[in-house]
Amino acid sequence: MAEEAAVRAQAETVRRLKQDNADPDEIAKEVTKLLEMKAQLGADEGKQKFVLKTPKGTRDFGPKEMAIRERAFKAIISCFKRHGAEVIDTPVFELKETLTGKYGEDSKLIYDLKDQGGELLSLRYDLTVPFARYLAMNKITNIKRYHIAKVYRRDNPAMTRGRYREFYQCDFDIAGQFDPMIPDAECLKIVHEILSDLQLGDFVIKVNDRRILDGMFAVCGVPDSKFRTICSSVDKLDKMPWEEVRSEMVGEKGLSPEAADRIGEYVQLHGGLDLIERLLQDPKLSQNKLAKEGLGDMKLLFEYLTLFGITGKVSFDLSLARGLDYYTGVIFEAVLLQQENEHVEEPVSVGSVAGGGRYDGLVGMFDPKGRKVPCVGVSIGIERIFSILEQRLEASEEKVRTTETQVLVASAQKKLLEERLKLISELWDAGIKAEMLYKKNPKLLNQLQYCEDTGIPLVAIVGEQELKDGVVKLRIVATREEVSVPRESLVEEIRIRTSQC
Amino acid sequence: MAEEAAVRAQAETVRRLKQDNADPDEIAKEVTKLLEMKAQLGADEGKQKFVLKTPKGTRDFGPKEMAIRERAFKAIISCFKRHGAEVIDTPVFELKETLTGKYGEDSKLIYDLKDQGGELLSLRYDLTVPFARYLAMNKITNIKRYHIAKVYRRDNPAMTRGRYREFYQCDFDIAGQFDPMIPDAECLKIVHEILSDLQLGDFVIKVNDRRILDGMFAVCGVPDSKFRTICSSVDKLDKMPWEEVRSEMVGEKGLSPEAADRIGEYVQLHGGLDLIERLLQDPKLSQNKLAKEGLGDMKLLFEYLTLFGITGKVSFDLSLARGLDYYTGVIFEAVLLQQENEHVEEPVSVGSVAGGGRYDGLVGMFDPKGRKVPCVGVSIGIERIFSILEQRLEASEEKVRTTETQVLVASAQKKLLEERLKLISELWDAGIKAEMLYKKNPKLLNQLQYCEDTGIPLVAIVGEQELKDGVVKLRIVATREEVSVPRESLVEEIRIRTSQC
Repeated sequence: MAEEAAVRAQAETVRRLKQDNADPDEIAKEVTKLLEMKAQLGADEGKQKFVLKTPKGTRDFGPKEMAIRERAFKAIISCFKRHGAEVIDTPVFELKETLTGKYGEDSKLIYDLKDQGGELLSLRYDLTVPFARYLAMNKITNIKRYHIAKVYRRDNPAMTRGRYREFYQCDFDIAGQFDPMIPDAECLKIVHEILSDLQLGDFVIKVNDRRILDGMFAVCGVPDSKFRTICSSVDKLDKMPWEEVRSEMVGEKGLSPEAADRIGEYVQLHGGLDLIERLLQDPKLSQNKLAKEGLGDMKLLFEYLTLFGITGKVSFDLSLARGLDYYTGVIFEAVLLQQENEHVEEPVSVGSVAGGGRYDGLVGMFDPKGRKVPCVGVSIGIERIFSILEQRLEASEEKVRTTETQVLVASAQKKLLEERLKLISELWDAGIKAEMLYKKNPKLLNQLQYCEDTGIPLVAIVGEQELKDGVVKLRIVATREEVSVPRESLVEEIRIRTSQC
Repeated sequence: MAEEAAVRAQAETVRRLKQDNADPDEIAKEVTKLLEMKAQLGADEGKQKFVLKTPKGTRDFGPKEMAIRERAFKAIISCFKRHGAEVIDTPVFELKETLTGKYGEDSKLIYDLKDQGGELLSLRYDLTVPFARYLAMNKITNIKRYHIAKVYRRDNPAMTRGRYREFYQCDFDIAGQFDPMIPDAECLKIVHEILSDLQLGDFVIKVNDRRILDGMFAVCGVPDSKFRTICSSVDKLDKMPWEEVRSEMVGEKGLSPEAADRIGEYVQLHGGLDLIERLLQDPKLSQNKLAKEGLGDMKLLFEYLTLFGITGKVSFDLSLARGLDYYTGVIFEAVLLQQENEHVEEPVSVGSVAGGGRYDGLVGMFDPKGRKVPCVGVSIGIERIFSILEQRLEASEEKVRTTETQVLVASAQKKLLEERLKLISELWDAGIKAEMLYKKNPKLLNQLQYCEDTGIPLVAIVGEQELKDGVVKLRIVATREEVSVPRESLVEEIRIRTSQC
């Protein structure tokens, strides 16, 4: 840059004056000039250093990503609607105190808004707590709803694996006092339907129950006060080997090695109805009231899942803990299984794509009289699903259309802008999806090229002759076929040629 | 409350001791006790004072509001798609510096996030600045996109009139170097289509041009340095009478009374092509380069709008200014007209429902080399539209369904839960929208009542006899008619009976 060169030249001048033992006043004058030049340069640099980016852990969705995103949403929403859910929406931020005390160790990840006078606010961390607040505030004791919206976590982003600071959650919840395990089974059915529908490959839905976990902790000799913290250690078993989790329990959390080892034996168990039956006979667990309740309900759940025909993908897994504080009963998490290397014995999990559980106490935390509304729900972790769909689409080289335009209104000669405007207006008013180039005199070739590039299937061409004859030339882009269509039947012709049926 | 009574009793004790000139130590002891009790009561009150509400200026959308909202979105999105727009999405927050210097006097309404270490962030104030940032960041010079998302303004809420702190904007913008006024005319066509489609009653789209405004300010004798602030005074003319605006200009902003009066003459003008022609002949305005350019383009715009057949609802209005700093050319705003009192001569405007304009310099503000991307766009102010649709629906007493459930799976006798689960699972798997009550043995009457309440049109009833015969009894809720349907044709039968065709 010219300015930098000038600064370097000035520095050289100063150096030489000093070397030559020049008049101190003259040196001082040149040094001042140098400092001024440097300051100016610094200011300019500061100005140019404006960073053009989205905030850390967030991203834009361009038209192509949006097309993929909308496909996934469509599958999810149609599943939620198939199960009779209503839809609600809540503000992106809540009073700070609404979120306080709901997320355990994760609370530090909440985004707070600046205190600009007025209420203290935080961005929502999930959709479950706002849902509970909504129920309590409106005294709703019975609802089945879905909610699809962005949530915010100041977590360490890992964007290639679909972990963002701003991300969508797609939640389906059933609130109300019902007979046991019927809504819980429906939540699992929903996960099964969505993951099957999106064709994400093989998956397994791990299921456990907080009461079984707590009972297990009790019979293993974990003191009551350590239940939650030991639970959050167990929660790490999907990312850490048992040995590390064990040393966290014993070292950091002060659990006795014997208790840890007893836990270690349980958490490696997973299976189906047979395992539930076995544990119901377990001499220690069966003596614990909580565990017995949990196991009884787990048995009922598996009976319902058998009727739904989905037990093949469901695994009762004693290592599943889930991090959040508010769960009280059944918990579950769906993970995709890696299939690339097909001769490995046990497929490797590539991460959770859905999770949820029962939280019977959360609404009561918001009710002035503590009235409880039992809830169970599922949250689909859509970002990881996007990542997979994006990668797959890239590999397939399928061309994704990002618009639905049916026809381009084009002209073959110059000076026909007004005719194009008149025609496109007629088409819009008739509900046809139509575009034109925003040029007075576009070349026909450019207009045809635009259709090739964007996937528009038809071109309606107006020319002097067509105008005289009261027709429009309709060109089918794929076949290059051209037909003359009377102006009054153009709309119908376009509809027929672009209908999906 | 018992605690409050105890405090009152203790206060009475202290009062009596003082009255009786009791031992000062004893008084002190009882006063201390009183203070402690009060403090405790205060703490308890603090605990109970947990406020169950959404943040100021925000609201939840329940299922009914969502049903209305989705109707409006559907009309808007289908219009945007009809015009060939792609869709994008950006994060809810931006780097604070991205928003700096874009909104003029309105910048004080921006929500900042708390500095929790890391980048300084603000919630987006509109969708236009994030769009410009997106274009510059991805070096996109040519796109037609829509974006529907929430924006945030710490404004004084007026919720009954649809002014919120969190609200949706539905933006459609065309970016790129094109022949003049073609994309601008399309934006106005879009406003016309959407407002007509939503049947919100009569409306007018006011149009002006920043260049005409600036030219007008110049010929009226407004100093260059006061253009923007005088412009924001003019912007208040839709809410304040001219006299008040004039005194703001002269009093607060130091404009000469003569200049203000000259502005006063212009800003009362509104009309169509005739007015444009007249102003092109105006001895003062026609001498101003900016005004002449603006008027020339305005004439072209009206020619295109004539081809679109929408000039009947468009008014060239010299009082329209629009608050935001970034506009450079055409600006417009759609207002609904009150029609209740039909014999008033000029209909009264009830507020803006759409606005937009040309902003050719905004993208360049983000480009390191200042490369410009001309843009024009429109933003639909959906909240006010919701308010109107909500009020109308309430008045009409139309029953809004909040689910799309086609059939309720019910049982006529007890102990048929398993059969209901099996049947509903079959229906879900076949893509039928089905619900059941989450009870082991629901009464038939309750099941039928649920259909009445929620608008479910069909009931599939299983009973001992039906199971034996391999049929399901299908009840049509509206007519109470019941037909026996073989199990294998149930799905088809439900589809036929609930198809809209």
